[in-house]
Amino acid sequence: MQAVIPVSLPQNSYEIAIASHNLDQIGTWMTNETTKKLGKKVLAVSNPTIFKHYGQRVIDSLTNAGFAVSHCILPAGERYKTPATLQKIYDAALEHHLERSSTLVALGGGVIGDMTGFAAATWLRGINVVQVPTSLLAMVDAAIGGKTGVNHPRGKNLIGAFHQPRLVLIDPQVLKTLPAREFRAGIAEVIKYGIIWDRELFDQLENAPRLDQIRYVSEDLLQDILTRSCQAKAHVVSKDEKESGLREILNYGHTIGHAVESLTGYRVVNHGEGVAIGMVAAGLIAVKMGLWDRESSDRQIALIEKVGLPTRLPEGMDLDAIVATLQSDKKVKEGKVRFVLPRQIGSVIVSDQVEAEVIRHVLQQM
Amino acid sequence: MQAVIPVSLPQNSYEIAIASHNLDQIGTWMTNETTKKLGKKVLAVSNPTIFKHYGQRVIDSLTNAGFAVSHCILPAGERYKTPATLQKIYDAALEHHLERSSTLVALGGGVIGDMTGFAAATWLRGINVVQVPTSLLAMVDAAIGGKTGVNHPRGKNLIGAFHQPRLVLIDPQVLKTLPAREFRAGIAEVIKYGIIWDRELFDQLENAPRLDQIRYVSEDLLQDILTRSCQAKAHVVSKDEKESGLREILNYGHTIGHAVESLTGYRVVNHGEGVAIGMVAAGLIAVKMGLWDRESSDRQIALIEKVGLPTRLPEGMDLDAIVATLQSDKKVKEGKVRFVLPRQIGSVIVSDQVEAEVIRHVLQQM
Ligand SMILES: NC(=O)c1ccc[n+]([C@@H]2O[C@H](COP(=O)([O-])OP(=O)(O)OC[C@H]3O[C@@H](n4cnc5c(N)ncnc54)[C@H](O)[C@@H]3O)[C@@H](O)[C@H]2O)c1
Ligand SMILES: NC(=O)c1ccc[n+]([C@@H]2O[C@H](COP(=O)([O-])OP(=O)(O)OC[C@H]3O[C@@H](n4cnc5c(N)ncnc54)[C@H](O)[C@@H]3O)[C@@H](O)[C@H]2O)c1
Ligand SMILES: [Zn+2]
Ligand SMILES: [Zn+2]
Repeated sequence: MQAVIPVSLPQNSYEIAIASHNLDQIGTWMTNETTKKLGKKVLAVSNPTIFKHYGQRVIDSLTNAGFAVSHCILPAGERYKTPATLQKIYDAALEHHLERSSTLVALGGGVIGDMTGFAAATWLRGINVVQVPTSLLAMVDAAIGGKTGVNHPRGKNLIGAFHQPRLVLIDPQVLKTLPAREFRAGIAEVIKYGIIWDRELFDQLENAPRLDQIRYVSEDLLQDILTRSCQAKAHVVSKDEKESGLREILNYGHTIGHAVESLTGYRVVNHGEGVAIGMVAAGLIAVKMGLWDRESSDRQIALIEKVGLPTRLPEGMDLDAIVATLQSDKKVKEGKVRFVLPRQIGSVIVSDQVEAEVIRHVLQQM
Repeated sequence: MQAVIPVSLPQNSYEIAIASHNLDQIGTWMTNETTKKLGKKVLAVSNPTIFKHYGQRVIDSLTNAGFAVSHCILPAGERYKTPATLQKIYDAALEHHLERSSTLVALGGGVIGDMTGFAAATWLRGINVVQVPTSLLAMVDAAIGGKTGVNHPRGKNLIGAFHQPRLVLIDPQVLKTLPAREFRAGIAEVIKYGIIWDRELFDQLENAPRLDQIRYVSEDLLQDILTRSCQAKAHVVSKDEKESGLREILNYGHTIGHAVESLTGYRVVNHGEGVAIGMVAAGLIAVKMGLWDRESSDRQIALIEKVGLPTRLPEGMDLDAIVATLQSDKKVKEGKVRFVLPRQIGSVIVSDQVEAEVIRHVLQQM
């Protein structure tokens, strides 16, 4: 079953299409009525692993639909999400004579998606990009909403631009080859949507027998998870394209999550695991402040545990370092740390009134 | 006398302010009602020569107005308009903890303006930029309209973004230190506005006794030249922010101009000189095609000569190479070279119907 979710924006609206075997339909999708203004030239950008699995199918589908397709393979990993790697996309764009009407196709996780999106934002002052996310995190988060960028040696995503894709094409089948830890990291973001936006999604996740590996998740549930998560993200993005208000709720679990990720050098704890820990912490803070009931918080913790994600801080973390890191976050406004806090499952508020003492108290328990 | 020209856009409208001693007023301008939402942190970007002349005045004015100002000095010259130099702006932005509300001030010619604008477009996915153009070309062209970018080793301005400034602040007095050849290059663009948009501006230029050096140009005429040129550019940009239609007329003289510039390795012929040659060529093509009268074309040639700009191709240029270069221009649509051609002084059309034979015939005469 094909789910098609509109992302409605003042300019540059687009669709997210979710269905098994969409990879083989990309040529059709890129010539249909909503996107048909794309020029003939396509540059597919991927990494070696993902390209080996799925590159040829994408190229065949595009070629059959009449596109002239070339490709550019980048080294895998967050540490290559840099201005230097970006140059490789630019070089390929030049070599293949891309024009303003041409399209980059990002085939990969969030790293490929963010870099390819940024290259598209900046080549010839903006060409088309189509996102074909292959990790769960990229499907439900990174590929949607137009945030693109690369890292500065001293900070993540500091160099970037808003550049909406022309289409987001999701084929749930590709998740079968995604490493299990990456799958769980994506589920952390799905739980986030349950808490901030969609109580029914939360309930569905609670009712699932297992969520720690994709092979235990039915095709129907997976389709539902993807559809509901993308709907939540699309909705928030539609209301706040350039991140001036509502979009902030997407940071649920990310405030403390980022601090833990960065203090552990991005190795011990990956992004999804950091978000899991951060959601537990935000939930406990909300309970402590009388904003949320303990029972809901316990349900959140139980769900995170079921997925096999961490609910406690890694051994030996320095609590003061966490609090200090929060203060230096780029999202701090006028020196006040802003927290997204649950009021009920499915609804959150943003607060800059969280006392450092409360944060410390909660972290001590974890 | 202060001229204030609005650049009206669906979002991000701004003003161009033109008056002697505006440099000392930048602090006031950046805190007035149209721009007052700027944060306290400012990073001024310039090159050694320009900063030595004008840096301190800008910093003093900003500091007096309450801004926390730091600066970043980049090496001078088009050959440093690269991704590598951009990193220096990013490093300074990081070092000085710029936030989303912070502002880059570009104090310099088009090179500084384009790089600083692009850094602003891409740092934290977009911060504010104020353009303080110091070359005539930057005042009447580069600083207005939001085109920003850097060069790829194999092509000019290939990496870039649209990012409108919050304010363009022009102080005509700074032109006194601009090298004469750079001044003349700027006058080429002013003549362009006369032909494509503003017949009266053309008449004023014709009536001026001398235009080859700024010291022969009265303050009043200079103010008029700047105001009318900025009005023309502002008008065209307002109607076509993202370069999908009308903005194309700004390429008058640039089609053949770019080819001559690039074939002479950007050394023999500078940009303004290329444009001068290109305007003569476009004029002769228009005459040859029966679109323009010879008398007007002769007036254009006489004006260009008066400025001390070239009206003929440099010695020994390969005409076939020029025609071949035209074909490979990034603005070619579906293989057809597009020319901006005068119909009268003050009015042009765009044509993709110019035969290669006509181009060759005209170039042979030059
Ligand atoms: N733009 C946004 O709004 C946004 C939002 C969230 C995260 N991000 C960014 O996304 C990145 C993280 O994304 P990610 O978690 O997808 O990381 P990733 O792109 O590094 O992918 C994770 C790993 O899984 C592999 N992989 C991906 N799909 C696969 C598949 N189908 N089969 C086999 N292997 C596969 C990748 O090669 C990689 O090794 C970060 O850089 C983050 O900053 C961006
Ligand atoms: N963004 C746009 O819309 C746009 C339009 C046209 C040109 N451009 C770009 O602008 C650049 C050319 O701009 P430019 O002609 O100003 O070149 P430039 O910035 O290199 O300046 C020319 C020279 O004059 C010096 N200079 C500038 N102002 C001075 C002053 N007041 N006193 C003493 N010296 C001074 C500079 O140091 C430099 O050596 C090119 O890179 C071109 O691509 C951009
Ligand atoms: Zn996240
Ligand atoms: Zn020009």
